[in-house]
Amino acid sequence: MAIIAIDLGGTKSSAALMSHNGGIYNRQKTEICKKSGPAVSEIIQKQIKKLIQAAKEGGHHVKAIGVSVPGIFNPDKGEVWAPNIPGWTNYPLGKELEKVSTGIPIFIESDRTCYILGEVWQGNAQDCRNAIFLAVGTGIGAGILVDGKVLHGQSNIAGATGWMALNRIYRQEYKKFGCFEYHASGDGLARVARDLVNSAPDYYGLLRRPLPENITSYDVIEAYDAGDNLAITVINQAIEYWGMAAANYISIFNPEVVIFGGGVFGPAQKFIPLIQKEAERWAQPIAFREAHIEASKIGHEAGLYGAGKLALMEIEKGDKE
Amino acid sequence: MAIIAIDLGGTKSSAALMSHNGGIYNRQKTEICKKSGPAVSEIIQKQIKKLIQAAKEGGHHVKAIGVSVPGIFNPDKGEVWAPNIPGWTNYPLGKELEKVSTGIPIFIESDRTCYILGEVWQGNAQDCRNAIFLAVGTGIGAGILVDGKVLHGQSNIAGATGWMALNRIYRQEYKKFGCFEYHASGDGLARVARDLVNSAPDYYGLLRRPLPENITSYDVIEAYDAGDNLAITVINQAIEYWGMAAANYISIFNPEVVIFGGGVFGPAQKFIPLIQKEAERWAQPIAFREAHIEASKIGHEAGLYGAGKLALMEIEKGDKE
Repeated sequence: MAIIAIDLGGTKSSAALMSHNGGIYNRQKTEICKKSGPAVSEIIQKQIKKLIQAAKEGGHHVKAIGVSVPGIFNPDKGEVWAPNIPGWTNYPLGKELEKVSTGIPIFIESDRTCYILGEVWQGNAQDCRNAIFLAVGTGIGAGILVDGKVLHGQSNIAGATGWMALNRIYRQEYKKFGCFEYHASGDGLARVARDLVNSAPDYYGLLRRPLPENITSYDVIEAYDAGDNLAITVINQAIEYWGMAAANYISIFNPEVVIFGGGVFGPAQKFIPLIQKEAERWAQPIAFREAHIEASKIGHEAGLYGAGKLALMEIEKGDKE
Repeated sequence: MAIIAIDLGGTKSSAALMSHNGGIYNRQKTEICKKSGPAVSEIIQKQIKKLIQAAKEGGHHVKAIGVSVPGIFNPDKGEVWAPNIPGWTNYPLGKELEKVSTGIPIFIESDRTCYILGEVWQGNAQDCRNAIFLAVGTGIGAGILVDGKVLHGQSNIAGATGWMALNRIYRQEYKKFGCFEYHASGDGLARVARDLVNSAPDYYGLLRRPLPENITSYDVIEAYDAGDNLAITVINQAIEYWGMAAANYISIFNPEVVIFGGGVFGPAQKFIPLIQKEAERWAQPIAFREAHIEASKIGHEAGLYGAGKLALMEIEKGDKE
């Protein structure tokens, strides 16, 4: 028995033919190169065709296809809303993929849901029934496991954690991104650094650039490592926000683990001990002692494994019925 | 068919013999009067005996007993931890009540769990599958419904919302209560008012008392109604915190409703429109539009109806097995 797992990101689509225990028989990776609408769907369709062919050649019976999308999936309509893929406002991805799936059932979920499923299957949430994945990339979202099941909310937009209110004095800048995302996402780190540079004409450190709009979160972390004071201010503030958010998840959900992942963690993994220390100040003390705060150990593979786990779970569900 | 519902609070125990749809056949209410340990258990035992007798006389067959406790219930050990009842650190309430229950099964849950169950059954969360009850009394706790089931966490302390981190600059005062509870619980309102009075020697308004430690949250709300500036400052700040907390629940859980209850709501019900306005600034916009923010309409009966619903749910579970 095999499954096909697809992790569609904003810049590339990763796909794999997988065994029931996560072994990878065949892997496909395709850049999206600013394609839009149906062209992105065609990339995935090609990957599915190739992997079905590979399964045939290897003698593997594909029982389900799992797809992780960078946005929200509406299961009632079979439509995807993905803000970073032009033309995917209410995109009928389910129907599109059925054209090439040769009757194999397809299951689609948001990336944040797949991240936590990936951690449950192959990462730091194995054997956990209550676990949180905080995905800190361009934006911030959370995949949440409650008593072994993914939290969806009434219309599949649960986990919109970028909007977590953490800083009582409201600022107009929060209107577009949410408070937590404004300060502590990848874009947020760069944004806060740029604002600080612009308001400090006497600063001539590593983040003073001819074009300040080119500063990235990676630049900020590099400058922090080199001892740049402005970068240290930015990162220390982000650590406060990350710690407060982790604390809130711990106090509300009483989980076994809170996992930090996404592009920023990554290089920000080294801040985990400081995040733990910050979270300890804020969280309910017993719940804090019972919870781990960790960086993802499967990193950028969390979405792919999550798509695989999604397919497996649906197969199991079908077997039970 | 009938059930027995018991709502144990810090100062009294309310008990009722109920029909399957919440009709009340018989009601018992006993003050606890600073009793401790086994004496409190005896009060409940007496209530159970009386209600079993009443059921017999009325020809009702009691199928289950539900009990709401002001603390945490550990179902593995059958023990209750209730900080406001002296001697109830790990109190074996389950076994104690079995002495008088004549074989009728007993189910115990924390008050915050019962509050949300009460709202699902008879209050503002009917037909909801994702709903939050924010209990704002002496302290702050939350009962959380996820996809039709109560959120417990790994060790039954989920919903410790008094610890929600909402104000980035950490203060030592948060260590004992948590940030949200420090500022916006019933005790918090009084505490903040007292601190302001003490630091304003020129203030001679309604909250200037010979013994400032006697100021209560009700006094603060009364003074607000009378236009007292210091009280207005305290309440406006609390509205910010209540709105931020509601927003966080909306962004994370994507629920149908967030219900404010507990002793403070009560008199603070009139602030709901202001809390909605504050929450709107912070919450994920789509999730906000989909969620109601309301005051409990069953008020101080939420725990009693919740204990009843708990009993009913367990009967249904048993019937299915």
